[in-house]
Amino acid sequence: MTTSSNTPLGVAAIGYAFMGKAHSNAWRNVASFFDVPAFEQKVLVGRDADAVSEAAAKYGWAESATDWRSVIERDDIHIVDICAPGWMHAEIATAALEAGKHVLVEKPLANTLGEAELMTAAAAKARARGVQSMIGFNYRRVPALALARELIAEGRLGTVRHVRAAYLQDWLTDAESPMTWRLRKETAGSGALGDIASHAIDQILYLLDDSVTEVSGRLQTFVDQRPGPTAGALEDVTVDDAAWVNLSLASGAIASVEASRVATGQKNSLRIEIYGSLGSLTFDLENLNELYFMDATVPVREQGFRRILVNEPEHPYLGAWWPQGHIIGWEHTFTHQIRDFLTAIAAGESPSPSFEEGLNVQYILAAVEESAAAKSSLIQLPARATSTVIEGA
Amino acid sequence: MTTSSNTPLGVAAIGYAFMGKAHSNAWRNVASFFDVPAFEQKVLVGRDADAVSEAAAKYGWAESATDWRSVIERDDIHIVDICAPGWMHAEIATAALEAGKHVLVEKPLANTLGEAELMTAAAAKARARGVQSMIGFNYRRVPALALARELIAEGRLGTVRHVRAAYLQDWLTDAESPMTWRLRKETAGSGALGDIASHAIDQILYLLDDSVTEVSGRLQTFVDQRPGPTAGALEDVTVDDAAWVNLSLASGAIASVEASRVATGQKNSLRIEIYGSLGSLTFDLENLNELYFMDATVPVREQGFRRILVNEPEHPYLGAWWPQGHIIGWEHTFTHQIRDFLTAIAAGESPSPSFEEGLNVQYILAAVEESAAAKSSLIQLPARATSTVIEGA
Amino acid sequence: MTTSSNTPLGVAAIGYAFMGKAHSNAWRNVASFFDVPAFEQKVLVGRDADAVSEAAAKYGWAESATDWRSVIERDDIHIVDICAPGWMHAEIATAALEAGKHVLVEKPLANTLGEAELMTAAAAKARARGVQSMIGFNYRRVPALALARELIAEGRLGTVRHVRAAYLQDWLTDAESPMTWRLRKETAGSGALGDIASHAIDQILYLLDDSVTEVSGRLQTFVDQRPGPTAGALEDVTVDDAAWVNLSLASGAIASVEASRVATGQKNSLRIEIYGSLGSLTFDLENLNELYFMDATVPVREQGFRRILVNEPEHPYLGAWWPQGHIIGWEHTFTHQIRDFLTAIAAGESPSPSFEEGLNVQYILAAVEESAAAKSSLIQLPARATSTVIEGA
Amino acid sequence: MTTSSNTPLGVAAIGYAFMGKAHSNAWRNVASFFDVPAFEQKVLVGRDADAVSEAAAKYGWAESATDWRSVIERDDIHIVDICAPGWMHAEIATAALEAGKHVLVEKPLANTLGEAELMTAAAAKARARGVQSMIGFNYRRVPALALARELIAEGRLGTVRHVRAAYLQDWLTDAESPMTWRLRKETAGSGALGDIASHAIDQILYLLDDSVTEVSGRLQTFVDQRPGPTAGALEDVTVDDAAWVNLSLASGAIASVEASRVATGQKNSLRIEIYGSLGSLTFDLENLNELYFMDATVPVREQGFRRILVNEPEHPYLGAWWPQGHIIGWEHTFTHQIRDFLTAIAAGESPSPSFEEGLNVQYILAAVEESAAAKSSLIQLPARATSTVIEGA
Repeated sequence: MTTSSNTPLGVAAIGYAFMGKAHSNAWRNVASFFDVPAFEQKVLVGRDADAVSEAAAKYGWAESATDWRSVIERDDIHIVDICAPGWMHAEIATAALEAGKHVLVEKPLANTLGEAELMTAAAAKARARGVQSMIGFNYRRVPALALARELIAEGRLGTVRHVRAAYLQDWLTDAESPMTWRLRKETAGSGALGDIASHAIDQILYLLDDSVTEVSGRLQTFVDQRPGPTAGALEDVTVDDAAWVNLSLASGAIASVEASRVATGQKNSLRIEIYGSLGSLTFDLENLNELYFMDATVPVREQGFRRILVNEPEHPYLGAWWPQGHIIGWEHTFTHQIRDFLTAIAAGESPSPSFEEGLNVQYILAAVEESAAAKSSLIQLPARATSTVIEGA
Repeated sequence: MTTSSNTPLGVAAIGYAFMGKAHSNAWRNVASFFDVPAFEQKVLVGRDADAVSEAAAKYGWAESATDWRSVIERDDIHIVDICAPGWMHAEIATAALEAGKHVLVEKPLANTLGEAELMTAAAAKARARGVQSMIGFNYRRVPALALARELIAEGRLGTVRHVRAAYLQDWLTDAESPMTWRLRKETAGSGALGDIASHAIDQILYLLDDSVTEVSGRLQTFVDQRPGPTAGALEDVTVDDAAWVNLSLASGAIASVEASRVATGQKNSLRIEIYGSLGSLTFDLENLNELYFMDATVPVREQGFRRILVNEPEHPYLGAWWPQGHIIGWEHTFTHQIRDFLTAIAAGESPSPSFEEGLNVQYILAAVEESAAAKSSLIQLPARATSTVIEGA
Repeated sequence: MTTSSNTPLGVAAIGYAFMGKAHSNAWRNVASFFDVPAFEQKVLVGRDADAVSEAAAKYGWAESATDWRSVIERDDIHIVDICAPGWMHAEIATAALEAGKHVLVEKPLANTLGEAELMTAAAAKARARGVQSMIGFNYRRVPALALARELIAEGRLGTVRHVRAAYLQDWLTDAESPMTWRLRKETAGSGALGDIASHAIDQILYLLDDSVTEVSGRLQTFVDQRPGPTAGALEDVTVDDAAWVNLSLASGAIASVEASRVATGQKNSLRIEIYGSLGSLTFDLENLNELYFMDATVPVREQGFRRILVNEPEHPYLGAWWPQGHIIGWEHTFTHQIRDFLTAIAAGESPSPSFEEGLNVQYILAAVEESAAAKSSLIQLPARATSTVIEGA
Repeated sequence: MTTSSNTPLGVAAIGYAFMGKAHSNAWRNVASFFDVPAFEQKVLVGRDADAVSEAAAKYGWAESATDWRSVIERDDIHIVDICAPGWMHAEIATAALEAGKHVLVEKPLANTLGEAELMTAAAAKARARGVQSMIGFNYRRVPALALARELIAEGRLGTVRHVRAAYLQDWLTDAESPMTWRLRKETAGSGALGDIASHAIDQILYLLDDSVTEVSGRLQTFVDQRPGPTAGALEDVTVDDAAWVNLSLASGAIASVEASRVATGQKNSLRIEIYGSLGSLTFDLENLNELYFMDATVPVREQGFRRILVNEPEHPYLGAWWPQGHIIGWEHTFTHQIRDFLTAIAAGESPSPSFEEGLNVQYILAAVEESAAAKSSLIQLPARATSTVIEGA
């Protein structure tokens, strides 16, 4: 599908829940800050006609619809943004790509490897025809992380040796918090692993421009039953509350990843520490305007992690926003994502991260699950004395 | 050996390098701050007569000696504080215990499991005769960590679910940093694992009053050759630069531990995070006067990690020092250690951590090495595309 | 002017530079997140026809215009949002209020006290007819500061004794940074004092719900000449680079305020510390999602400043945005401001801060200038030895 | 008095309370870490014979005595360290100097300007005879602050423009905290001003190597009556709880200082921020091993305050202590002070800070009191509306 540069691109979004709201916000605002190809927020799609109509009005879409297929058939739609649940991704994405629509799909690519592979094949085929696709790992568009990638690519860390990543949340801390579709394997695919460890893993690959050669992992469900809809009845939680991952990278670096939904007091703390032979970087998503950089090439006397407030016109994406020190928020990463997606489409280039990259992350997650199931690395220890003070003889 | 409470305890220390200096400082100062049984800094032992004589004068010891055996034979020595290298621990400690001397030994208990087991047996036998022994995991005497243990014991965290510990240093970051005995397996036993991960593991057991049931681990040497004494000649590094450990605890909690000597910019960062159903704690040794506590039982609106400056008379050990806000340093943990050791001896009680506890940590370290050698948990991945942007079609 | 609740409110904004962009962003997004009365972004006004037309398209306004008077004459305009320079405020605001338009005006209210008094009189008169007005001290809408005000009002700090506020920026650090209208008294009114100390002073009054009884102050211009447009020619800077203010409050509390545009490394650091008999609060605008609260009523053993991530549905304004831990940015304060303005209009209530409150801040600033000019508090000291080491006899 | 370098210097200390304990600790330990001239802890002086005898034994002094005059008469005493209350300083110091003893006196130099001037004259006279004297502003010996001074002297900050200093404590927050001699003008001289603002002022002069030309100030007693020893009876507090100071420096820089004993939650927070044309520094005594440095000469993209853990052998004083990252505490500043004092004596040089420097600080404090009493800078404001929301018409 070739788009005349004179016709605004018509955009449809599928889904209006949390991610639909975040993507809509990005579409509504991107052109106010960035110089992007002309587009129109044509239609928002959802299953409940009244609700989606209300959401469309609220979020800046011209129309609403209840059938995503009808939207894909429209000639005035050039871009489909898929914010629907993971089990719907494959069907919608392949249909849209075949119909010649550029596709942006929220992560994870799909709930199963098979579906993800089908989507990746469809994307490759479409790409050959100039139809673009991208997966929504929005944290690649955090300016501080984009700056981190630049510094690493410039060799400022020297040889990267190890990476410590963690994604810590606490919304499942309360054991009385009820059962939801997110806690069932059949609907959610996995727990903390797929939902948030996936972000950390994608970041590591992005920041280091590296690939994974070996994987080991462990998964744990701390609260294995939770209240169901029937009063008094407990249901089984079938996904992990927490995940521990160890990755060998092709470069020789080693990365550890820990993800949790029961890390009490941590709200949305994606932390990354990267240690190289010449310097280091650390980051925390709860303070996403900041990057900490340690330059080990300056004299020892004055070395130290410096807090870079990534908020200057010199920093990635920031020239479009506010004067220095006027910080941006989490939602801005989606605006940057749309900007990069539109820019690539206009340039006829393939945006990144591609479906291949999304599939790659899924292979890694699958390997974690395989390793965790095998438990082959666990050495059993006999029962022993604890640290309790031994009473005097 | 029974000590009349009227006779001051005679103390001998073996070793005057880094640990000897730190222990001597504690002996020299403990009675100025704490109400401890009377003792005398009798003799400091080292191999080089001139150097040990000078060190003795500098560090407050009445005499020096070059043969530790001669010291153990003396009737006026009641306590032997072993700060010699790990491979000498077993011989000195067993001889001292048999001679009826109370023994404090620096960690690790010994370089081999066999030696550690012998020492533990000797300690048990001696204890039955009222002769006490202790291993020097001095970080148990950090006031903030002692407070953490109290809060956990009082149930303030509820059920502890997971623990994240790391001990990060950077003194081996420079690949040109020369070969030393600490980097050879035969002299050092292990690398970051035994030297610093051991501290983190002991802390976890101490803080949670728990024991380990399962272990998995990974070890890595990032710089596998370093300059030897001969110009231009490289020697093989045979211990690990970094270690990753995953522990199952008897309580059901899971702990991860990461240790590194190449974490550029981290100087002595022993960090511990403990997540429970009702609250959390975090700590960093580089700011050892601070404990961060999140109490999840207060209203959500006002929840948050609070920085407790553990520097009040109400806090463990602090009543002896300075007014609030006048912070203490790393060396004070050794002073507290001597205080607890002397107090236990006076009370006829067995001090903690015992040799059994030290041996227990060594079993865990051995299991890490076994797991790391097996590599059985590692799942291989085929080569894949990296995150590099794929050029447009 | 009565507005039927069925007719959407027509909005006009005057100005499209920094503040115009920030206000436009708020108008464009407020209805996507908050339940506000219906309104329409009718017209954006600016002097350059092409530029304002482009800005209108970019920022979501239906039309553009070059004459603000023509806009005030329109019946379909019910709200005028004044983002023009300070010297234009009085004329536009009084005309708009007389024409029955609700008015939002950026701070400062005006460049002179006389103009500000006229505007306040016009606002009072208009208010009697149901026409509302508000001044844009947007930092009142930082959720963390709104929470701070709630906690203080609930008595959580007990008797507030002193307040330390500072607003530190560094955009004038470079002495070669060129002359601008902001550095001339006739165009800017004042420097750091009016531009940023004003925000700090308004916050103190807002947080404590208090008023000022006594003022003293000092002003300083560190770089008193800067390059003008003619190469090699320097022009005089006639406003302050930094200001120091001391305020007595009616409650008996005392507040200090320091503002600077040459605080190298501080980008937009509005810091507030409030010390009371039962607790304390601290805040920094560079981390605007965080409020630090010290509750001195909990046992001393566990007291400490806690970092509240003000990002929960329980917190002011936050229910409308994203899940916990997904932080918001600086621009969101304007969205909250529009929400509160619209809500007050719909309810027929007078929004706060009123023009009276804006005028009040200006009286305080004028008193600072009076005190600074008098220099009556300065005690002269004779020349003395510095701290230099005195050489030995 | 000439001391043969072969005879150890005999030291006497007067006073064994808080400061006596801190100074004794320094004398007991300095030679274990630093290469200093030989000395002996001869005698500790106090008024209560039993208590001082016990303290002497505990703190490492060979003898105790109750009459300071008798000590000054002894030939084997070469150094007198005065830790007695301020009102005793003048008499002891002048007698000791006249007797040819080197004198170290705790700050403040004296409780009155007259006494301080007498002492300074005596010190000048003694210095001419090779008898040295020093005042104990121990924070000059914080390694991080010594490093700060070096960086400033090297021009790393460029032209220093302004300094923000605060010394915040909270031990008087509780209004029920009883009356003590520290709260009466006749015994204490002043409150927060003399006790802690003095430290901040001395630091500013030390760090910038500058002098004060103009002073203004304000003092406040928030809790003006406190419980006396008689049940139910309140006594008047006659010193300040908090002080605000503004200083013009000879270099053209301006410094603000705020001191408080009712800053709830701040324990011993001496904070210093120094802003220059090329860089900045910040420091907090509660984390005294850290210095934050912002180097504005590196590219903007990577600028930021860096946390230097001032704990490397390259840093002032640190080579004598422990390996990097093993932090030191507050008490170490006294050890450094004794080291510098002894080193100067051995070299026949005058140590710094001299009595002249101590007197200089007292002149500044006196000027603050004069300015505060005059209240001439305060502009009165009429009663005005607070920030309370004005109800709608």
